[in-house]
Amino acid sequence: MDLEKFAQDIFDSQPFSQFVGAELSKVGTDSAEITVPITDHLKQQHGYVHGGLISYVADNSITFAGGLALGGNALTSEFKINYVAPAVGQSLVGRAVAKGVGKRQAVCQCEVYAIDGDRETLCAIAQGTVVSVSRA
Amino acid sequence: MDLEKFAQDIFDSQPFSQFVGAELSKVGTDSAEITVPITDHLKQQHGYVHGGLISYVADNSITFAGGLALGGNALTSEFKINYVAPAVGQSLVGRAVAKGVGKRQAVCQCEVYAIDGDRETLCAIAQGTVVSVSRA
Amino acid sequence: MDLEKFAQDIFDSQPFSQFVGAELSKVGTDSAEITVPITDHLKQQHGYVHGGLISYVADNSITFAGGLALGGNALTSEFKINYVAPAVGQSLVGRAVAKGVGKRQAVCQCEVYAIDGDRETLCAIAQGTVVSVSRA
Amino acid sequence: MDLEKFAQDIFDSQPFSQFVGAELSKVGTDSAEITVPITDHLKQQHGYVHGGLISYVADNSITFAGGLALGGNALTSEFKINYVAPAVGQSLVGRAVAKGVGKRQAVCQCEVYAIDGDRETLCAIAQGTVVSVSRA
Repeated sequence: MDLEKFAQDIFDSQPFSQFVGAELSKVGTDSAEITVPITDHLKQQHGYVHGGLISYVADNSITFAGGLALGGNALTSEFKINYVAPAVGQSLVGRAVAKGVGKRQAVCQCEVYAIDGDRETLCAIAQGTVVSVSRA
Repeated sequence: MDLEKFAQDIFDSQPFSQFVGAELSKVGTDSAEITVPITDHLKQQHGYVHGGLISYVADNSITFAGGLALGGNALTSEFKINYVAPAVGQSLVGRAVAKGVGKRQAVCQCEVYAIDGDRETLCAIAQGTVVSVSRA
Repeated sequence: MDLEKFAQDIFDSQPFSQFVGAELSKVGTDSAEITVPITDHLKQQHGYVHGGLISYVADNSITFAGGLALGGNALTSEFKINYVAPAVGQSLVGRAVAKGVGKRQAVCQCEVYAIDGDRETLCAIAQGTVVSVSRA
Repeated sequence: MDLEKFAQDIFDSQPFSQFVGAELSKVGTDSAEITVPITDHLKQQHGYVHGGLISYVADNSITFAGGLALGGNALTSEFKINYVAPAVGQSLVGRAVAKGVGKRQAVCQCEVYAIDGDRETLCAIAQGTVVSVSRA
């Protein structure tokens, strides 16, 4: 199976990812990167990207990193996120990698960066569990 | 200060909350409820509400519960969420309450329910930290 | 099966629980309480109970609450804890309850209190996942 | 100030760390390593190291990594841990590093390994927040 295409097809069938303008910008055997161009409607009251959108990026890049490491359909069962800096710039990028991979479960870490010109700022750090989902 | 109006004004100035169709449906002295009508563009590939939207509801209701308990501007510095059931139905409701409240920090818990007709299903449980933000 | 006796037998066979002086002080169909008398060797540099011992109490009461809700052998796969106040007094008590219970997994919440005379202080709040373990 | 000596002095004044036999085995400008020889009284009912002791190692190595990065007294305000493999062997080693460091707060990641002969097994992954504590 072409896991990269498999991942892209799943991503393309997520209406919410389309709605917020996200792109699955990179995938590896145990990693995934999601990029979202920063637009005004993704912000909170101070003009920074809303934490809820940052948590979407973390949740979803963790899901794809874990699913690729586990080799199939998967979902994030839980995650934790620490916000470390306000997100401002042109785009938000979440990079997740699977660290503790078992048969049916992978623990993944994710860093979310704001890209402003040629400068990357670490905005959030996340850690979560991805579990395999059997396909019918 | 009218904290309820203060909270509503902040909520109304969050573009992302407007974008996803969220409403600050209830506030108390240390609690907040956010409701989002479930529409197709909030879903993931299986037709359930996307985890990223559920995490937005948890993050933001925690922010408001903590801010109300702390009596002013506040932000969620970190949170953790466990997804316990797929979210299907007409609306998603996050109910957060502050539990451990100090001078500048409140630890809040949140339960997210899917409302389907007259049935409520617990979809996610979250816990996070809200910190006071001084205004200039 | 007598789940209460089953839980007590497992608890009694945990050397670390004996080592720190813990007691499984109460069990229910989906809840558990662990009590530890506070002694000097459980403290950190400021004379408060060490966070590591508080996290043991959270971890283990979550395991037992989840195991009782799931009806058999179980283990905590992950948890998160927020410390909200220093723990001082005669004993530390962790009270956990299962909230989101599935077939093989239960999400539990735990509150840890310090008992000082007739006063209870909330010291920590935790949330974690307990998974069933098949017995050979 | 000699931060290494400062860290060691604080560690040496933690009765609980002495009680479980822990050693502050390495420190850096934003990192810390804690080692605990595995003895029978640190185990749970299956002969593995008890999760509560693993969480102590994560909590405490996170505290020291964060305190070193922040340059003074500090405490862990919250953390999250995922257990990924049973811990067996001669010793348990927690390695923490500060990633998102601000003026008064550092977000740290920690990996806990079991050392069995010349083999290291990743047993747990943790992430938490360390906050500065002003000294009187």
